[in-house]
Amino acid sequence: MAKKLTPRNEDYSKWYNEIVVDADLAQHSDVKGCMVIKPYGYAIWERMKDVLDGMFKETGHMNAYFPLFIPKSYLSKEADHVEGFAKECAVVTHYRLKNDTNGGGLVVDPDAKLDEELIVRPTSETIIWNTYRKWIQSYRDLPLLINQWANVVRWEMRTRLFLRTTEFLWQEGHTAHETEQEAKEETRQMLEIYAKFTEGWMAMPVIKGNKTESERFAGALDTLCIEAMMQDGKALQAGTSHFLGQNFARAFDVKFATKEGKQELVWATSWGVSTRLMGALVMTHSDDAGLVLPPKLAPIEVVIVPIYKGQEQMDEIVAKCKEIESELRGAGIRVKLDADDSKRSGWKFAEYELKGVPLRLAVGPRDLEKNSCELARRDTRTKSFEPLEGIAEAIKTLLDTIQSDLYTSASERLASNTVEVDNWDDFKEQVNNGQFVMAHWDGTSETEDLISQETKASIRCLPFDGDLTPGSCIKTGNPSARRVLFAKAY
Amino acid sequence: MAKKLTPRNEDYSKWYNEIVVDADLAQHSDVKGCMVIKPYGYAIWERMKDVLDGMFKETGHMNAYFPLFIPKSYLSKEADHVEGFAKECAVVTHYRLKNDTNGGGLVVDPDAKLDEELIVRPTSETIIWNTYRKWIQSYRDLPLLINQWANVVRWEMRTRLFLRTTEFLWQEGHTAHETEQEAKEETRQMLEIYAKFTEGWMAMPVIKGNKTESERFAGALDTLCIEAMMQDGKALQAGTSHFLGQNFARAFDVKFATKEGKQELVWATSWGVSTRLMGALVMTHSDDAGLVLPPKLAPIEVVIVPIYKGQEQMDEIVAKCKEIESELRGAGIRVKLDADDSKRSGWKFAEYELKGVPLRLAVGPRDLEKNSCELARRDTRTKSFEPLEGIAEAIKTLLDTIQSDLYTSASERLASNTVEVDNWDDFKEQVNNGQFVMAHWDGTSETEDLISQETKASIRCLPFDGDLTPGSCIKTGNPSARRVLFAKAY
Repeated sequence: MAKKLTPRNEDYSKWYNEIVVDADLAQHSDVKGCMVIKPYGYAIWERMKDVLDGMFKETGHMNAYFPLFIPKSYLSKEADHVEGFAKECAVVTHYRLKNDTNGGGLVVDPDAKLDEELIVRPTSETIIWNTYRKWIQSYRDLPLLINQWANVVRWEMRTRLFLRTTEFLWQEGHTAHETEQEAKEETRQMLEIYAKFTEGWMAMPVIKGNKTESERFAGALDTLCIEAMMQDGKALQAGTSHFLGQNFARAFDVKFATKEGKQELVWATSWGVSTRLMGALVMTHSDDAGLVLPPKLAPIEVVIVPIYKGQEQMDEIVAKCKEIESELRGAGIRVKLDADDSKRSGWKFAEYELKGVPLRLAVGPRDLEKNSCELARRDTRTKSFEPLEGIAEAIKTLLDTIQSDLYTSASERLASNTVEVDNWDDFKEQVNNGQFVMAHWDGTSETEDLISQETKASIRCLPFDGDLTPGSCIKTGNPSARRVLFAKAY
Repeated sequence: MAKKLTPRNEDYSKWYNEIVVDADLAQHSDVKGCMVIKPYGYAIWERMKDVLDGMFKETGHMNAYFPLFIPKSYLSKEADHVEGFAKECAVVTHYRLKNDTNGGGLVVDPDAKLDEELIVRPTSETIIWNTYRKWIQSYRDLPLLINQWANVVRWEMRTRLFLRTTEFLWQEGHTAHETEQEAKEETRQMLEIYAKFTEGWMAMPVIKGNKTESERFAGALDTLCIEAMMQDGKALQAGTSHFLGQNFARAFDVKFATKEGKQELVWATSWGVSTRLMGALVMTHSDDAGLVLPPKLAPIEVVIVPIYKGQEQMDEIVAKCKEIESELRGAGIRVKLDADDSKRSGWKFAEYELKGVPLRLAVGPRDLEKNSCELARRDTRTKSFEPLEGIAEAIKTLLDTIQSDLYTSASERLASNTVEVDNWDDFKEQVNNGQFVMAHWDGTSETEDLISQETKASIRCLPFDGDLTPGSCIKTGNPSARRVLFAKAY
């Protein structure tokens, strides 16, 4: 049985690392900053991928695949973009190793030096827009709606499993449009899809809004984001959608013939979510006993555990459990029967709690007599007895209830920890207490920096549905057009 | 409309390159040796992935994800392995770029040199077995059945789209077992799954067998493979499954406690197929008019083209086409209605032929009167008229027929171009004529090399169900245990 986790109120960060490793989601590899995503963690990511991929396709996007390597010169073509990524990239300089003639073992072969270094993609705007130049000639080729599922590398000095790793998995959408308006609508549409996914599947409420200029994606004219509140009150940026204007079209000379025969630069968007969502999922619902997973993303929704003494009871009860298993599977429920006789049921209970299986169904000798079973909810840790007659329907209903309860509970936490503040001392106290603070800001990057340096809180976004009443900046007292969202963040 | 393809009998290799690009499967990128997989090509690859992934999961495998980078020292731990891969790998030496202080633009920052170089994975045995050491303690942890979908990089000097590219996409299975027997069974099971996939979905017959020692995977004790015959008579290795013995367990010190409490080295397998299958698919079925796709892998199984003159006919016929579209979609058929009025139907016919859509359904004014339609098969380019009453069922049957006809036709080509040869002059002539030649071989690497140098034909495999009668080596006359398969190969 797994060791007990550090309680959250003792050390939230330690609890997080332990749960990710102990619940078999991921672990650090020996390669600095790179993680191994373990089968159980990957199964959750696969479910996320499938759902998102379906949503992208429903809205007309197709998947494609572009090279892992980006020539150094491509990065330089968009000035802000290179500024944002050059300092944290893995550089391929050679294409061969050889045995050292002086017995130094395997060494880089100096004769195999590349003429131009290749960068392992930190994001693919440059390589993709270089390709789009060949794909786009006329308005008939637009809109071009493409997504890529890929690995990317950003060299990070301080890493945390899922939240910040040198290599991570993600999807990056890259679209090309005839008009500014259409590109802006796409930017917004994709953010809404991300919000629909995090709220509907991850049971994680988010605040949608615009980033400030200083927090924009390198090369974007506008960055939209969804921000979620973790259990410790910190914000986590869960997805971004960028309106790129004509910056990349200009840098890579991508023009199209309009209906009127004029040559114009193409309008662009890009948008992405990553394995970071796995970290967000953990820190939204889990507790001191382990992972809590929303049913819609759980690789196993129900685990069946037989309870018995002796061979005869075992045979009878396991047979009944197999019946239940096949009934539930037939009803489309993801179910696992754990009939491993070498492990005690107490061990199993703890194991599946740690792994966040939403429902545990136990059948013992008395249940067999009564044709019933014990259902234990992972989220509330409450138990109930249910007749086996009609169990599949009862479980489906219960799974829906769990999904919606998780969302409600996370929403209440977000609501009750979001405050409006108009006083600098209160501001410092509230952001320190892990609150989402709606406060006035004078709109300058200087003030933004000042506040961030003094409080470690940053502007998470200008919420779409925030308070638009003017006021005075919380720090400088200068005029402010609206309240913005401040919080400490991952 | 796309330009005409070079006919196959004029220049097969040129035809191949043109069809891959013109049918929107893939194209070369500006990054040497790396390809862009275009949306239509990627959609076929996605179908391949989905089917294979389902087969892997049905046999108990789970997906996981391991780092892209492999420390140089890991590669060196298995002697044959490093020998096989060191000469063709991308080496990351630095983790930062900077602006040259002398105005030379963006340069590698010499202060950001890695202590140990990282290799972009050419295959993941080393990084995975280094991880397995932590995952495997006892027989209870075995078997460990893991698969990874990933990109890999092998630096190639001469590349061809899908067939040989510096970066490619693949799956790599890596399993760990208690016994030699179990690992060998796994090796064989996965090869059988590959054959089931290529034959059942790609409609591509394969010859299953063992590789010779010199053709084995670097680090394997035995390599099983499936070999397919392309239209030009060349062989293409479509998948491999390796029995690795205890080589990687020894190199990475992976031991387990047996039931009896002894410490033993773990037995291993690895197996993979890649985007190379896309090339095999093209060269198995396609013709001078373009791609021919087996229905089971076609992103679009049926394209509906309305034929009309004038607005009134158009409205009526397009409405009928929409009805048919929704009926077919409801029946689970992947269907596309192309009602784009800006393109002529002749253009559409050629376009969907080029893209290999298995069936074209056309509705014109007369069809409307008779409540019928014209169906055109892509594979045979034959047409028939069908009543619209019950069209979904008729189409399903026809798609099954096409799938099975494609397999039959490829099987007949394989059978009629496979010969037994017992004379050196005949041998040279037959391998030159693009035949699969079953001939005797004395079992030595020297003879294998000699034959290959003189004829460019290599031993593709020792077929599992080949002729086991002894004889005399085709080249040396020395005793031979059995016939083996020779052919020129991609």
